[in-house]
Amino acid sequence: MSVTGEMLIGATALRGGDSEIRATNPATGEQMDPAFGGGGAAEVDRACALAAAAFDTYSNTAPGQRAAFLEACAQAIMDIGDELIDRACAESGLPRGRIEGERGRTVGQLRLFASVVREGSWIEARIDPAMPARQPLPRSDLRQRHVALGPVAVFGASNFPLAFSVGGGDTASALAAGCPVVVKAHSAHPGTSELVGRAIQKAVQQCGLPEGVFSLLFGSGGTLGSALVADPRIKAVGFTGSRSGGTALMKIAANRPEPIPVHAEMSSINPVFLLPAAMAKRAEAIGKGFVGSLTMGAGQFCTNPGLVLGVEDDRLKTFLDASRVALEASGAQTMLTPGIYKAYEEGVSRLSTNNRVETVAEGKPAEGGPYQGRAALFTTTAQHFNEDETLLEEVFGASSLVVRCPDVETMIAAAEKLEGQLTATILMEPEDLELARKLVPVLERKVGRILVNGYPTGVEVGHAMVHGGPFPSTSDSRTTSVGSLAIRRFLRPVCYQDFPQDLLPEALRDGNPLGLWRRTDGELGKN
Amino acid sequence: MSVTGEMLIGATALRGGDSEIRATNPATGEQMDPAFGGGGAAEVDRACALAAAAFDTYSNTAPGQRAAFLEACAQAIMDIGDELIDRACAESGLPRGRIEGERGRTVGQLRLFASVVREGSWIEARIDPAMPARQPLPRSDLRQRHVALGPVAVFGASNFPLAFSVGGGDTASALAAGCPVVVKAHSAHPGTSELVGRAIQKAVQQCGLPEGVFSLLFGSGGTLGSALVADPRIKAVGFTGSRSGGTALMKIAANRPEPIPVHAEMSSINPVFLLPAAMAKRAEAIGKGFVGSLTMGAGQFCTNPGLVLGVEDDRLKTFLDASRVALEASGAQTMLTPGIYKAYEEGVSRLSTNNRVETVAEGKPAEGGPYQGRAALFTTTAQHFNEDETLLEEVFGASSLVVRCPDVETMIAAAEKLEGQLTATILMEPEDLELARKLVPVLERKVGRILVNGYPTGVEVGHAMVHGGPFPSTSDSRTTSVGSLAIRRFLRPVCYQDFPQDLLPEALRDGNPLGLWRRTDGELGKN
Repeated sequence: MSVTGEMLIGATALRGGDSEIRATNPATGEQMDPAFGGGGAAEVDRACALAAAAFDTYSNTAPGQRAAFLEACAQAIMDIGDELIDRACAESGLPRGRIEGERGRTVGQLRLFASVVREGSWIEARIDPAMPARQPLPRSDLRQRHVALGPVAVFGASNFPLAFSVGGGDTASALAAGCPVVVKAHSAHPGTSELVGRAIQKAVQQCGLPEGVFSLLFGSGGTLGSALVADPRIKAVGFTGSRSGGTALMKIAANRPEPIPVHAEMSSINPVFLLPAAMAKRAEAIGKGFVGSLTMGAGQFCTNPGLVLGVEDDRLKTFLDASRVALEASGAQTMLTPGIYKAYEEGVSRLSTNNRVETVAEGKPAEGGPYQGRAALFTTTAQHFNEDETLLEEVFGASSLVVRCPDVETMIAAAEKLEGQLTATILMEPEDLELARKLVPVLERKVGRILVNGYPTGVEVGHAMVHGGPFPSTSDSRTTSVGSLAIRRFLRPVCYQDFPQDLLPEALRDGNPLGLWRRTDGELGKN
Repeated sequence: MSVTGEMLIGATALRGGDSEIRATNPATGEQMDPAFGGGGAAEVDRACALAAAAFDTYSNTAPGQRAAFLEACAQAIMDIGDELIDRACAESGLPRGRIEGERGRTVGQLRLFASVVREGSWIEARIDPAMPARQPLPRSDLRQRHVALGPVAVFGASNFPLAFSVGGGDTASALAAGCPVVVKAHSAHPGTSELVGRAIQKAVQQCGLPEGVFSLLFGSGGTLGSALVADPRIKAVGFTGSRSGGTALMKIAANRPEPIPVHAEMSSINPVFLLPAAMAKRAEAIGKGFVGSLTMGAGQFCTNPGLVLGVEDDRLKTFLDASRVALEASGAQTMLTPGIYKAYEEGVSRLSTNNRVETVAEGKPAEGGPYQGRAALFTTTAQHFNEDETLLEEVFGASSLVVRCPDVETMIAAAEKLEGQLTATILMEPEDLELARKLVPVLERKVGRILVNGYPTGVEVGHAMVHGGPFPSTSDSRTTSVGSLAIRRFLRPVCYQDFPQDLLPEALRDGNPLGLWRRTDGELGKN
């Protein structure tokens, strides 16, 4: 396979003529070949038309067939081999080990959804059998299943060029639900996008599915991206990126003649709460562990710990000292794109020139690369934190702010002031239990995942994961964008009343031919 | 109990000073006592503050306690006795038998949700146990449950003064989910609203719950209703009513600093498809059955069959003849409000003066009451239907339009043109199976419930019901507003990572103390 710069619309590949997009190697600053042709309204129209045409067939594939397709996607991505790893490293500046790990995560995710599709609980089959003799009125036979929403627009994220991009979590869960997908590639890694897109295109063909199941478009967010979300054939949106980007898509979706759901994962500062007994026991170790989480991957994670709250005492001083030492030893790291680097530098500069904020430490200066970010740690008082709303804004990268609270009550009050978050972390010992019990109900209202004695970076792809949370961490807190529950974002229930057996979908027929967990008169069973 | 005209804010009752609201008895046109005082910003603020204050306690009640509260609400509604029936009849113009039945539905709904809360599957407990020895990285202990979204604003509907109003489906499902509720009463039945509101207020007190679990406000939709949806403490909205009302709330919710989900059930014309073999066998019976469904309750149901599609032949003529006879024998019925009557008359007049449309029949003229609606049946050709988008608009009341199609392909093509619907109905015989198989995938994309050989009015409250559908039938097709799945509208997942046992919510603790169905590493079981 080689990167051509073409878009993939159904089974075809074609060069867009609306704009030229080139990746920048952020380690060197050089522009990479080839140039990609951005698409426009015509390409959006064609991809959406194919997706709509594919819908009835694809959404009604048997679970086994759809699962096999997801597995074929995973295999085809692996089959690209080193070309994919090399290209993703060059386009993202991320190290090889990270990209290899991310490829594993990506194909693992596709395979997890294959197993979810086969297991079949996502169908949520329910049967309320007829009661013809019921008084005063008989009851009809009512059966419910979940069906795919329709074609889904997916926006690739910059910070996971594989796992949250063309073949990432949004695509995997939408395809698992039975929805054709039209991806708008992130312009930061077009070559990686094309390679993965061609792998999925190949899997579509291998599995004999309609070509419209998958398309990949290049272009600007403001024009092509907006047109995609506005297209009447698109029925839901998956997005990971900035707050401004996500809220722009939410507005477009809400203002359509037919509004549609947007699942945008956006902005989170992931507060870390340092409870007293934990600090008494291990303030230094917590400082080191925190800086490890903060600086990992140049801090370019949605779950990066951008805010720390602790009680101002000697232990917090120990924590700050240990953090300073660890942070000052941390090397500058190449950031994903020139734009992300610039925004990070501006965010750090805003904090370092804010007279309510003190700088605790900076990481080592950049060596060599033009877009290397230095880690940065700041501190402020609870009072200043309450006075200055800009301190709640995410600085995407390895920057964090430690808020020194006079007491634990102030720490809980600060938690109440937070916007919605993907995660919150509690560092505690058994002696902190009473305090933790006061904090957890506040955090349950604010965040999607609460951790004890860990760090928020590292998002497991499993069944119990929640990568979501109240606005602005996401646009819809009722879901997750990582883990098997993500399939539900793209499903809706349909009820079949008094259907003859041979018109019913297989999942709902008498005798349970698919062997599903089904709810009969509200009771779960395999009958 | 007696009706005072006061709002209920937490445990208090107080008279609003912003406006005066009086019910009109639509059977007589007389204004009823007492006058209700409408509230304003201060009352919205107070109700929302109490709801927010109640949230942590109420949302963490044990399933048994919350179920007992729902049952206490049901009992308190029954305890009102005849006063409630009399008042609801007078305010709605609906006959006593209907209101008594609706009361049964309302308390049955509360009791169904009590059983759902006790059974506990709504928690959707998931556990991915720790794998400390996993390579290359260990896995944390991850546990997920669903929690309540936050305080919910509920807008009572005019057409079900009990079952979709103060203590109706939205309130029952939100309370079941653990959400405090602030109801904005429908101005058409304020007395009924107050009586039910006082019953719920009593149940809150009896069960020792925080007063903010329930409040009831009166006022205009444009001011008080808008302020309620805009209040930052409100986290979701339940609404049943007009398309214009629902979309207005959607816009307010989408434009909040923190956008929130709106579950609005709005507009549906509920198409009925007459397949050839069924028509050959029983065109006359179908005509009679259809008119029975059309005229029930003066046609004031969300699922009223406002559109019929059939092939133009002798059988359709038989159907139209039978429909005419039945319809002309149907008496005029008092409609819910002067406004609904007026809108119905305008809708019928618009159809009868549309030169693409022929009038088939009208029901008997009004006798006595000022707001009695006459049933009306119209017909048009498929070509005219395609040319005139106004024919897709809902006329709320006992009016329907029969579209004469040249062939079955045209019928399917017409189905493709429909907006989202709550229901679609197929009249068929086994010989129609092949045609039905072509129609069902189209309908699955468009509607929430598909019926065979029935009529869409009559919405069973059970586990398999879907009362929902794509826009504009609702604002969010991923849910239902009737049936036990409705609880999910007001829930969101939270993940607990590496929590000590004594900090975990009971639902997720080792040993499964609540005896729930839980998913361990993706596998359902009771362990």
